[in-house]
Amino acid sequence: MASEDFRTIWLHPDDPQVVQIIDQRLLPHDYSIHDLRTWSDGVEAINDMYVRGAPLIGATAAWSLYLAALRGKFPKDEVARAAEALLQSRPTAVNLRWAVERIMAQVADAADGDLASIIRADAEAICEEDIDICLGIGQHGLALLKDISRRKNGDTVNVLTHCNAGALATINWGTATAPIYLAREAGIDVHVWVDETRPRNQGSQLTAWELAQNGVPHTLIVDNAGGHLMQIGQVDIVITGTDRTARNGDVCNKIGTYLKALAAFDNDIPFYVALPSTTIDWTTESGADIPIEERGPDEVSKTARPETRIANPAFDVTPARLVTGLITERGICDASAKGLADLFPEEAAR
Amino acid sequence: MASEDFRTIWLHPDDPQVVQIIDQRLLPHDYSIHDLRTWSDGVEAINDMYVRGAPLIGATAAWSLYLAALRGKFPKDEVARAAEALLQSRPTAVNLRWAVERIMAQVADAADGDLASIIRADAEAICEEDIDICLGIGQHGLALLKDISRRKNGDTVNVLTHCNAGALATINWGTATAPIYLAREAGIDVHVWVDETRPRNQGSQLTAWELAQNGVPHTLIVDNAGGHLMQIGQVDIVITGTDRTARNGDVCNKIGTYLKALAAFDNDIPFYVALPSTTIDWTTESGADIPIEERGPDEVSKTARPETRIANPAFDVTPARLVTGLITERGICDASAKGLADLFPEEAAR
Repeated sequence: MASEDFRTIWLHPDDPQVVQIIDQRLLPHDYSIHDLRTWSDGVEAINDMYVRGAPLIGATAAWSLYLAALRGKFPKDEVARAAEALLQSRPTAVNLRWAVERIMAQVADAADGDLASIIRADAEAICEEDIDICLGIGQHGLALLKDISRRKNGDTVNVLTHCNAGALATINWGTATAPIYLAREAGIDVHVWVDETRPRNQGSQLTAWELAQNGVPHTLIVDNAGGHLMQIGQVDIVITGTDRTARNGDVCNKIGTYLKALAAFDNDIPFYVALPSTTIDWTTESGADIPIEERGPDEVSKTARPETRIANPAFDVTPARLVTGLITERGICDASAKGLADLFPEEAAR
Repeated sequence: MASEDFRTIWLHPDDPQVVQIIDQRLLPHDYSIHDLRTWSDGVEAINDMYVRGAPLIGATAAWSLYLAALRGKFPKDEVARAAEALLQSRPTAVNLRWAVERIMAQVADAADGDLASIIRADAEAICEEDIDICLGIGQHGLALLKDISRRKNGDTVNVLTHCNAGALATINWGTATAPIYLAREAGIDVHVWVDETRPRNQGSQLTAWELAQNGVPHTLIVDNAGGHLMQIGQVDIVITGTDRTARNGDVCNKIGTYLKALAAFDNDIPFYVALPSTTIDWTTESGADIPIEERGPDEVSKTARPETRIANPAFDVTPARLVTGLITERGICDASAKGLADLFPEEAAR
C-alpha cells in the first residue's frame, strides 16, 4: 500500500518451505497471517477466498506450484497435478491461467532437482513485476485525477470504485487504487465512494480497510447507491479493476460493475478500468466468450427458506462501448481491439 | 396476498381502541403482530419501519389519526399534533401526505364528538380503496404478462423486481406483485428474480417471504446481479413500485431502481412501474424536485471503523425516458405528463 514494504504474499522469512498470505476473509476485524504448506493449501486459499483479486490469484497459483515442487518423489508429476487443480479452481480471472502457463513453460525441460528453485525465482519475479505494473498504472491514472483536480480548482476529486481492486487484490498498491494512493501522495484532495460489493462485501471489508490504513478519505455506500450519487453530481470518475479483459476491450469484473458503467455513461462521467496487461486474454475475442463463475448460495443468504432459490453469478461483462479508457502499465488506451493492440503490439500479433 | 383476507393493518377485532400491524422488521423469521395504541406508536411504526411501502405508510398514517382522535381532552388539537408529526416522519413517499391531507379535510368542520368515527370510516375506506386499486393494477399488468407468455409459447415468464412492492407494502395484493399473483392464478408460468435490496433487505426478507407464502417460484439475487441476468436473456420484464411519481412521469423508488432501469433499457427489456394513483404527486413537476431521504449509517454497517464514513440515501429517481409504461388502476400509460393527464384528467387539471 502507501507503505513500500506491504505485501499480500511472501515466502516465510525463516522457513522456505512455507508461503504466507493474509487471510482476507477475516479483514477488517482481524489481520491474520495464514501459512500455505502444500499446493492444496494454495488451491483452498484461492477457492475459499483467503486471497482474491486477479493478480493475487495469479501470484498465489505461482507460489502453489513452488510448494508442489518441494514435495513428493516425482516433483514434476506433483507440479503437473497442482497446475491442473489450480486451473480448475476459479474460472473467470485469467491471471491464474497466465501464471500457471508461464511457469509450466519455464519448467518444461527442467531437471527434477532444479524445479523448486526455478519456480521460486519465477514466482518472485511475478510478484515484483506486479508491483512495477501497479505503480505504472498508478502513474498513468494519476494524470487523470490531476486533470480533474485542476478542472475543479483543487476541490475534492470524488472517485467511485467497486469491489476491491486494491493493494489486497495485487501484491501491493492495487490497480484501481494505485492512482488514488499516488494522488494522495501528490497532495491532491481525493475522496473515494466505496461500493459495499455484495455478496462478499469486498468493498466494506477490504477496500474501506486499506483506504483507512492509508489515510484516504472514503465513504461506504450500498451497491444500489452509486447511480443516484452520479445523478446528483457527487462522482467525478469511476475506476474499477477487471478479472479478464477481452481482445475487443470488453471487461469482465465483479458482478455489478456493468450497472455502474451504465450509470456513468448515462451521466457523462468517465468510467475507467485499471488493469495489468496480465488480465488481458488475447485468445478471447469478446466478453460473451468469458465463463462467468456461479458461486454458492450461502454467500447470498444462509437463512433463505427452502422455497427460495438463490442464484449467485460472481462477475459480469461491461461492454467496451461503456468504458472510457483502459489504464494499463504502458499507458491509457481506448477499450477496443485497436487500442489494446497499439499498446501491446507483440501480444496482439501472436 | 393470493388469499383474499390477508391484511397488513386492521382494527383489533375485540378492542376498537387498538390498531394492529405486522411487525415487518421481524419477517421472514417471525410473523409477529404489533399493537398501535397511540398516534405516537403509529409514528414510531413508520419511522422505524415496522411498516413500509408507500400505500401502507399512508394507511398507517390514517389509522394513527384515528388513534389521536380517541385521546386527550381536546381531540382536535391531538389530531392536528399527530398530523404534524406524521408529515415529518418520512419525506419521500407522497401517500403519507395524501392520506393525512384527505383526513384533515374531512374533519375540518367536524365536532369533537364525531372526530373518531369520521376518521375511522375514512381510514377503513382508504384501506378498501387500496385493495381495489391493487387489483386494478393487477388486471392491467396481467395483460402484459399474458402477452409475454404467449410470445414465449407458454415458457416461463421471468419478472425482475426490486425492493418490496408487494402485499406487504400495501393492504393486500401489492402493486408490482398484483400482476404476478393474478398471472399465477391464471395458470401462467411465472418466475420472479428478487433483488435482495440493500441496505434493508426488503427483497430477501419481505418479497421472497410473500412469494413463498403464495407458491410463486422465485430466485433471490444480490442487487448487483440483475444487469448480468438481463444481458444473458434471463429477464423478460421488470416491474417495480414507486414511492412518488412526478407529474412528468419520473419515478422515485427504492435506491437502486435507477440502475435496473438503465440495464433494462440497455438490453431492450420492458421496464414498468406499478402504482396506485395515490403515489402521483401532481404538485411535483419532475423527479429533481423530490426530496431523497437520507437514513442512518447503522443500516449499512454496524461495524465500520471510525475512519469510514457511511452515506445511505434511501431512494433514487428513474427518469421517465427509461420507463416503458406506468401500470395504474385505470390502465397503462406512457411515463409522461400527457400519459398521466390522459388517464387522470381531473387530477391533472387541478
